[in-house]
Amino acid sequence: MKKKYKKVNAAILIIGNEILSGRTQDKNVAFLSNWLNKNCGINVQEVRIILDVEKIIIKNIKSLSKKFNYVFTTGGIGPTHDDITSQSISKAFKLKYGFHNEAYKILEKYYGKKNFNDGRKKMAKMPLRAKLIYNPSSAAPGFMIKNVLSLPGVPSILNSMIENCKKYLVSGLKIHSETLNLFTVESNISGELENIQKKYIKFVDIGSYPFFRLGKIGVSVVSRSSSKKKLKQVRSDLMEFVKSKKIKILKI
Amino acid sequence: MKKKYKKVNAAILIIGNEILSGRTQDKNVAFLSNWLNKNCGINVQEVRIILDVEKIIIKNIKSLSKKFNYVFTTGGIGPTHDDITSQSISKAFKLKYGFHNEAYKILEKYYGKKNFNDGRKKMAKMPLRAKLIYNPSSAAPGFMIKNVLSLPGVPSILNSMIENCKKYLVSGLKIHSETLNLFTVESNISGELENIQKKYIKFVDIGSYPFFRLGKIGVSVVSRSSSKKKLKQVRSDLMEFVKSKKIKILKI
Repeated sequence: MKKKYKKVNAAILIIGNEILSGRTQDKNVAFLSNWLNKNCGINVQEVRIILDVEKIIIKNIKSLSKKFNYVFTTGGIGPTHDDITSQSISKAFKLKYGFHNEAYKILEKYYGKKNFNDGRKKMAKMPLRAKLIYNPSSAAPGFMIKNVLSLPGVPSILNSMIENCKKYLVSGLKIHSETLNLFTVESNISGELENIQKKYIKFVDIGSYPFFRLGKIGVSVVSRSSSKKKLKQVRSDLMEFVKSKKIKILKI
Repeated sequence: MKKKYKKVNAAILIIGNEILSGRTQDKNVAFLSNWLNKNCGINVQEVRIILDVEKIIIKNIKSLSKKFNYVFTTGGIGPTHDDITSQSISKAFKLKYGFHNEAYKILEKYYGKKNFNDGRKKMAKMPLRAKLIYNPSSAAPGFMIKNVLSLPGVPSILNSMIENCKKYLVSGLKIHSETLNLFTVESNISGELENIQKKYIKFVDIGSYPFFRLGKIGVSVVSRSSSKKKLKQVRSDLMEFVKSKKIKILKI
């Protein structure tokens, strides 16, 4: 393992009643987790989905920003009355909230002076000293303050902005993963999986997840590690066991 | 509003590295939230997705079970080494953990004595006094202990078991919702939405969510309330505004 990288972790805070009520299926967790690990070696270790209620947002921002290297929020930075993320984050850190000069200019230029109404102006309000996360698809910027990065909830807009977060992030150790799809059931392999997990406990996390494909059931054995060498050793141990038991492998 | 029902809330605790890493897209939050509200009038108010690490599970079980009427856990009750939900819940409540008589019998019958190996036997281990949640699709039961209901992570199995939770749950006030899809942008309606929200602040929650459909952008205005009468009043106020502004409505 390279010594120059250390472990960097993050939490995701999803702010929005529409996800909690089940009306909208969240897509941002999977996207952000994958992107952060692949591009920055940042490991998402907790996700919370909460109501858009000011005191709940403040409480979660305070506790998560203490516990993790970064906190990514999604949702609640639009123009309507239920968009209260920016003001809640300001309050959590006791920072001045108001029109951010640069954000105001960006939005005024985008909409034109004539169409720059109160709702649109609201999107320029945030902690005054925040750094902007530019938005190439719909102008309204996200922002970073302390270790919190605030992004919109609409997945297509969030995805378009994510590259602009990179300059603010310290990279960590990338986690590699390897999957072995087996035509068996978990209880047939659980003993040996446990043995292999114990052998590599310091270096590799092994998880097993049932799947159903083409009318057959199987188990995906997923190994995750920052060391490609250790992953190779785990794979070799797994393959030896799989062959001895004559378990079929699904090749994708 | 009927007086015999009171507000009943719940939290969902998703236990599983595969969701956090972004490898697997969660589907249980939307399903559970919808089912709980529609069938039991139970309102999900917080979701957490956490690593399968014993002390993290214990901490979250303790805090969520104090804060909410019910806690639903998903994941970590299978046969492998990374399935540690049952033992962690036992530890959180300082309850005896071991083979549950009835669960053991169900699983032994399902697999047959000859095939009832250690991995499968593990699925009968739980807090000894737990009440079982029967599993019509793959036998291994979930369980309820105190106000925590433990379900598997595989969505198809969870879905097949959910009706068997109902007898353990006290029903609350059902939340109705109504959606108005408008061909406009949020910042054009944010002022009036805020006025209407203020007028009905005690009875109705109004949220607005941008959408993209058939190449056009729009806003879904979602009103939620336990009172159908108040929802009707909100709709009438909204329609009046929409007509005065000549905003087109998307009919689905």
